[in-house]
Amino acid sequence: MENPFNAVMSMAKRRGYLWPSFEIYGGSAGFYDYGPLGVRLKENVLAEWRRCFLVGEGFLEIDTPMIAPEIVFEASGHLAEFTDFMVRCEQCKGSFRADHLLEGKVENADALGKEELGSALSEHGVKCPDCSGQVGAPYPFNLMFQTQIGPDSERRGYLRPETAQGIFLDFALLYRQARERLPFGVIQVGRGFRNEISPRQGLIRMREFNMAEAEVFIDPDSTEHSRFSEVADIEVPLVPNTGDTVTSTLGAAIESGMICNGNLAYFMARTYQFLTTVGLDPARLRFRQHLPDEMAHYAGDCWDAEALTGFGWVEIVGIADRSAYDLSAHRDRSGKDLTALRKYDQPVMVTKRVLVPDMRAIGRQFKGDAPRVSAAIKAVELADDDEVPDITVEINGAPTSVQGELFEVKEVTEKVTGERFVPRVVEPSFGVDRIVYTILEHNLRQEVREEQEGGDEDGEAFRVLGLPPRVAPFKFGLFPLVSKPELTTVAQEIDAMLKEHDILANYDESGSIGRRYARMDEVGTPYCITVDFDGLEDRSVTIRERDSRSQRRVPIDDLVDEARTLIK
Amino acid sequence: MENPFNAVMSMAKRRGYLWPSFEIYGGSAGFYDYGPLGVRLKENVLAEWRRCFLVGEGFLEIDTPMIAPEIVFEASGHLAEFTDFMVRCEQCKGSFRADHLLEGKVENADALGKEELGSALSEHGVKCPDCSGQVGAPYPFNLMFQTQIGPDSERRGYLRPETAQGIFLDFALLYRQARERLPFGVIQVGRGFRNEISPRQGLIRMREFNMAEAEVFIDPDSTEHSRFSEVADIEVPLVPNTGDTVTSTLGAAIESGMICNGNLAYFMARTYQFLTTVGLDPARLRFRQHLPDEMAHYAGDCWDAEALTGFGWVEIVGIADRSAYDLSAHRDRSGKDLTALRKYDQPVMVTKRVLVPDMRAIGRQFKGDAPRVSAAIKAVELADDDEVPDITVEINGAPTSVQGELFEVKEVTEKVTGERFVPRVVEPSFGVDRIVYTILEHNLRQEVREEQEGGDEDGEAFRVLGLPPRVAPFKFGLFPLVSKPELTTVAQEIDAMLKEHDILANYDESGSIGRRYARMDEVGTPYCITVDFDGLEDRSVTIRERDSRSQRRVPIDDLVDEARTLIK
Repeated sequence: MENPFNAVMSMAKRRGYLWPSFEIYGGSAGFYDYGPLGVRLKENVLAEWRRCFLVGEGFLEIDTPMIAPEIVFEASGHLAEFTDFMVRCEQCKGSFRADHLLEGKVENADALGKEELGSALSEHGVKCPDCSGQVGAPYPFNLMFQTQIGPDSERRGYLRPETAQGIFLDFALLYRQARERLPFGVIQVGRGFRNEISPRQGLIRMREFNMAEAEVFIDPDSTEHSRFSEVADIEVPLVPNTGDTVTSTLGAAIESGMICNGNLAYFMARTYQFLTTVGLDPARLRFRQHLPDEMAHYAGDCWDAEALTGFGWVEIVGIADRSAYDLSAHRDRSGKDLTALRKYDQPVMVTKRVLVPDMRAIGRQFKGDAPRVSAAIKAVELADDDEVPDITVEINGAPTSVQGELFEVKEVTEKVTGERFVPRVVEPSFGVDRIVYTILEHNLRQEVREEQEGGDEDGEAFRVLGLPPRVAPFKFGLFPLVSKPELTTVAQEIDAMLKEHDILANYDESGSIGRRYARMDEVGTPYCITVDFDGLEDRSVTIRERDSRSQRRVPIDDLVDEARTLIK
Repeated sequence: MENPFNAVMSMAKRRGYLWPSFEIYGGSAGFYDYGPLGVRLKENVLAEWRRCFLVGEGFLEIDTPMIAPEIVFEASGHLAEFTDFMVRCEQCKGSFRADHLLEGKVENADALGKEELGSALSEHGVKCPDCSGQVGAPYPFNLMFQTQIGPDSERRGYLRPETAQGIFLDFALLYRQARERLPFGVIQVGRGFRNEISPRQGLIRMREFNMAEAEVFIDPDSTEHSRFSEVADIEVPLVPNTGDTVTSTLGAAIESGMICNGNLAYFMARTYQFLTTVGLDPARLRFRQHLPDEMAHYAGDCWDAEALTGFGWVEIVGIADRSAYDLSAHRDRSGKDLTALRKYDQPVMVTKRVLVPDMRAIGRQFKGDAPRVSAAIKAVELADDDEVPDITVEINGAPTSVQGELFEVKEVTEKVTGERFVPRVVEPSFGVDRIVYTILEHNLRQEVREEQEGGDEDGEAFRVLGLPPRVAPFKFGLFPLVSKPELTTVAQEIDAMLKEHDILANYDESGSIGRRYARMDEVGTPYCITVDFDGLEDRSVTIRERDSRSQRRVPIDDLVDEARTLIK
């Protein structure tokens, strides 16, 4: 059997699905181009994804820049934490990921820290794989692409490593769009960037990739999802970080405590439904819980949807509990209110002592940092007889004490309608390119056909791409049986009629009919419409189905309705 | 009258169309976020654009990376030419665009070169606008965002300034996808980047923006477009670079020689149709031809579609004749064949003298540059008795002579099926954000209503966004007249029924019915469906039309068909 990646990519390049970028200049690892069919497949997968989250869940979609100023990633923790450890060969100066050099020697080397990697490298006497030279000590390499915004070299920016941050920054505006009610979800579809040290595995590790993320803002007090009963009976293979793989309904997994959060389980179910709808093989899907030391810096718990491919089990979706991490981080750094309101049934009157900042004095002393200082003052909560505590704010990296003359202590009585809190975030994050690649791999099959259609491909092995109609780039091939004016005229009329109803068919009149069927089979087109001489008399055509290769006749006048039904 | 930009942006931010990015950190000029409604408007505009180019013209769509290695932009000329002239204040170190400092003093300052700008600045005694200090001499600032690919700091990359280059690099593969027939077109939709020195004018000059580009590859011998007759009668305002504005049909403009290229005229027509379909006001549209010194480095001729906005006439689409510039540049730099074949009616036998490279010797001498050297040798065409000319290739920036021992002269006879040539490119390039902004500005109007609906907004001035149904984010508002279970149940059933048919309605039960109509009017929703008590009896609803505010009753069972008709 041919290597599955090579089989997919050879078809993908020849037929216009995917190919490595910049090939005329020798290529650049980690970048791929989507060809004409690849774009359609990807767009169809994304349409299905939006059907799930935008229509099905009623989430809001936004679209924010790929470049962001440094302060965003300082706050989010990516500047400090989004790193891989690298070593450099002291002889040939080649760079390598430290954990890659330990493959086959140490398990889960990618979870090791700097010191542990250093010890493991010397323990196993690891040398440079290119020149056998001595390798230096591991050091962190930040995986964000860096750039400069505007002509001033001090205004550093980065390409976003995830679309999520754009959503968190807009939380206050989006909460208002959601009419200030939790839970609500926000989605974003677009590019993410990760400056891999040495990209491998084709589309699995790219430096520039397509993501589709949902950030769901929930009340941390509510651990259940209101629609969980709709999905409780869905059975999926689960690999908890505490034990072996089990196949269980999501309801049972919640009950047994294997999955602790009803929201995670709900979105695992929706993810499973989405993945199988777009054509992933359920027998090659599972959910694996992250090990505690494997989690991203922001995550409290995380289950990955993994697909079995020629590269082994590959993460294609991450469903993470990000807790209040990101919103708290941005609130602290910006001094802006990123909270939601939990309404009381009845407003209550509360008398309390509060600190009222002296804005003028603070402005004089702290200038641009004034909003953060006054936010810190206002954030102090005094119980009945408390002393005013020391207040410190980080200014230019140094903790700075806020003196008593900058505020007044007042007693106030106010009507309180509810309690403010930072929402908890559950994030289903989809790797679009990995999903597209897996769809191709799971659906490409070789068929040896005994009987031939059209007659001229005797003994050939056929490749068939068994895509579900919903995601197939073309739903229909459209052929005149032979290239004669009486047939081509009718076929072109049908083409125009289908276009009129936004149904795009692949019109083709070149080569034998068997060759044309084979071409459509290989690119995943589920149905072919053929205009033949019989049909000229009774205005009918043949519809041939890809997987069964069965044919039936349909009147031309019924074709639009028929086509619509077939696509659904 | 309020400033139109402020009027648009105040509605846009409040209602979730658009807002400046990174606001919680004080913002960053030149970046905008699309909110929930903005994303839907943009996606609808792009769907209409694809209906025009993908379905209507049958073009291929691809999707390539936003980062590209330096060699791509070295070849394309962007590294040398994609610059603005900047001056720095010697006192406060502030940076400014040289031409901006000459506004009101010199006309078309943006077309001036370095020396001319320098003279003009000193002639007019221009000082720093911030501190009145002395400004230095103008120097070029490259407008591409620079980054580094991988851990090796010498592998420079840039964010693409246009999507077009990704298409040119793939020409050979795409030509094969198009079955090696010209003309064919390739489209790409996605982000472009331009590191503006000082962005102004809101969404008009952004550092990161959305583009939709088509590159149409044509035979340079054919100056006519085969479907021109379909559009010859379309009348548009034209501003040629030789004279005054005229309103003319495109057919007449071709005949008079005002537009020299039938392909440019054809795509100007399609552009005009597209822009008016998505809601631009025809009375505020025109096509202006570039002045010779205003053209991009790659362009032979260019007509801009311009829209009249609060910022004056603004370029929203450029329709350029890029000649063979880009493909030739990449062919020369990569040594790869980026030509098309013009087939002869009959193959001919040709005897000729050719240079055959000695690959081994070339490899030894030129290593990685060997392919370019052998391409240069093969490219030499010898007429009957020609001497072999001097062959020079640029190696590491220096012209290097290729010696005679690296090739042999042979006489060969071969069957030639046609002639190879570098195709000419016509490019309609759409600025998506500018179009979206202009749609908002052209369609936002203020209405003072005498009679009120629902009764509680007496005397208010209403804002109505008169979007065409095709591009409106919501096609329908969906309301129970009041929030009572008998009505909400029916309304929610209708919501589910519409969703089932992929029709997304904005369900809303809060506030008075007049308030809800007003909200939908302001965001551009063309129709509102209201469930009232009468309708419970005969299973009917009211459909209210935004612009006429007329209402009529429709049976619930007919609603899906009715909705489909209204959207078309």
